[in-house]
Amino acid sequence: MESKIIRKQREEMKKVGFDGLVSISPENTTYTAGVAIPSQSLIRQRHVICLVPESGIAKMIVVNMEESFAKTNAQIEDIRAYNEFTESPMEFLANGIKDLGLGRGKIGIELDYLPARDYLKLEKLLPKATFEDAEEFFGKLRMIKTEEEIDKLRFVGRAAEKVHHDSFCKLKPGMTELDLAGFIVNGLYVEGVDYILKLVVGAGERCSHANPGPTDNIVKEGDMIRVDIFGSLSNYLSDVARTAVAGEPTAFQKETWKKLIEARMLILENIRPGVHSQEIYQKFSRKFQEMGLEPINFVGHGLGLTLHEEPYINKFSDTVLEPGMVLCIEPYYMMVDENMGFQIEDEIIVTGKGYELITNYKDSSELIRVS
Amino acid sequence: MESKIIRKQREEMKKVGFDGLVSISPENTTYTAGVAIPSQSLIRQRHVICLVPESGIAKMIVVNMEESFAKTNAQIEDIRAYNEFTESPMEFLANGIKDLGLGRGKIGIELDYLPARDYLKLEKLLPKATFEDAEEFFGKLRMIKTEEEIDKLRFVGRAAEKVHHDSFCKLKPGMTELDLAGFIVNGLYVEGVDYILKLVVGAGERCSHANPGPTDNIVKEGDMIRVDIFGSLSNYLSDVARTAVAGEPTAFQKETWKKLIEARMLILENIRPGVHSQEIYQKFSRKFQEMGLEPINFVGHGLGLTLHEEPYINKFSDTVLEPGMVLCIEPYYMMVDENMGFQIEDEIIVTGKGYELITNYKDSSELIRVS
Repeated sequence: MESKIIRKQREEMKKVGFDGLVSISPENTTYTAGVAIPSQSLIRQRHVICLVPESGIAKMIVVNMEESFAKTNAQIEDIRAYNEFTESPMEFLANGIKDLGLGRGKIGIELDYLPARDYLKLEKLLPKATFEDAEEFFGKLRMIKTEEEIDKLRFVGRAAEKVHHDSFCKLKPGMTELDLAGFIVNGLYVEGVDYILKLVVGAGERCSHANPGPTDNIVKEGDMIRVDIFGSLSNYLSDVARTAVAGEPTAFQKETWKKLIEARMLILENIRPGVHSQEIYQKFSRKFQEMGLEPINFVGHGLGLTLHEEPYINKFSDTVLEPGMVLCIEPYYMMVDENMGFQIEDEIIVTGKGYELITNYKDSSELIRVS
Repeated sequence: MESKIIRKQREEMKKVGFDGLVSISPENTTYTAGVAIPSQSLIRQRHVICLVPESGIAKMIVVNMEESFAKTNAQIEDIRAYNEFTESPMEFLANGIKDLGLGRGKIGIELDYLPARDYLKLEKLLPKATFEDAEEFFGKLRMIKTEEEIDKLRFVGRAAEKVHHDSFCKLKPGMTELDLAGFIVNGLYVEGVDYILKLVVGAGERCSHANPGPTDNIVKEGDMIRVDIFGSLSNYLSDVARTAVAGEPTAFQKETWKKLIEARMLILENIRPGVHSQEIYQKFSRKFQEMGLEPINFVGHGLGLTLHEEPYINKFSDTVLEPGMVLCIEPYYMMVDENMGFQIEDEIIVTGKGYELITNYKDSSELIRVS
């Protein structure tokens, strides 16, 4: 039984004229095979490759240590295993392409991931084949999620938001960022999240850094605390951020938060199929500036098997929204010199008529207080 | 002030004739700059590049969001920041190489990481330069750790072993793999480990899989439980594995464990400067087979900024041991059909006379018991 996603790949291949499609990055092999091979992102040399022909049987290439795992779990039946010390996955790939009769074919392949050395080797092994960059191909395909993908994203996004609130409740001034991280990690596992890619936890002067991990920095009265949770379920990620204050927020903090929430509402009101992402960014940017805040280059991005993916809601690109897109919306305002950082990041699904807010566990109209 | 590691790079470059050295993978840019740029491993497109000339000023290229972080934390002063949506890090790199007068130079670069697309672009931008694969260069250099690197590895390796024992003490039959993972994560953070790359936790039939993550699988009386902890401190990793049994081990389990420990002792006794890794593998392999156990292709590997690195103690390669190497030693025996998996993985430092055992918190001569 061929998976929905492999069928989608074949349909798109017909449109762009690819005879074969090769995925090799962790996100696209996971997408194609329906499961992540555990050691792929731990040990980069252990290439995992999926080869989907426009017609014919899909193949998967894995390191021999993962052969039994792949045979049990992957949605591809033809699995070939190489010895990581003595055999070359590129030879396996070239042979797979030849076996499919595509030695002179047009092969879409991830040139944004495939290492240069492997590319040079592949060119030698298949001198008559044409290789085309498939980054955009995969980006477009993965933009529109299947129901199964949406279920996973909804689950992990909701869990992340709940754990934000539960963990801030447990945090007291005098505890450290690592204590807070401990509450979050435990909470995520209890909720059923199966992996934590990273936690961003920054209090005090660290809250305005871009992606600080937790340290033994002590949370003091008056500190702002910014947390972003990158957890995952079967490799589908969460990216949910919240901001808190230890003690009573100042008038300035309350007012700035109110502005963030207004910007957030403006963006959400504009999300529905057919709207241009560029238009949303421009509206947000104007509003932010009117309120006296300096917008950064982007305010939203797709989410799925990677943290930032198509479509972006930014200054530089334009995509028409479609049902099935899952987006993070994140108004963000950092004041490095004042040790303040404001961020609220929600997740939404574009639906037939508008949007579904995944992160709807608690109202966000006020800054979270820690006491 | 130039770092010790950049000085080491320049000395080696003289020997192999590189005019410039480019690192671009997370491990080698972290190695060169002395700090990891947080978003590099989260968002692959956000290239981080270090460029060290054989003589002249080293440069670093980062995404603009990380510019202030890099300027504060990196041990390279000349930092250049690109806009991720509108500018190309490869153009920045090509300009950096030209600024150093190396447009016709021999450049060592990580062709095992650099994506094919970026390589093709770089070739166009610098048609007179020669690019040579620097994977081996970095592998050899990173094999011998500095004192600072050893301090970090010792810290995180010891923490991992202590947390193994503490967490197995808290585990009771009836709890899940995720409960055990929760104990471990908390324990690691309390010990001061600042990141957890992955936890391998497999009980019952999952203990013989290669790298299973924790699930809600319940630990039952009689189950074997295998745990491997990949934590890190400033990106220097731990890789420490232990095996436990819920309840009383069977005579067969006791006997098999004893064989593993004998193999471990044999390996450790042979570790000292000047010994060939191949000789160690062969001795281990013969011993394992004599005891009726089938050895896998490798029994040890280097550890540092990546989980598996040079030198390997395996069937296929040979490296002469030197002081300053940090190695994982891991006799491993899986019995998939019997739902049993035996593994003990320790960490050692090769010293002037022999070795220092990092993971010396508890004696391992008996299987850990969970009750």
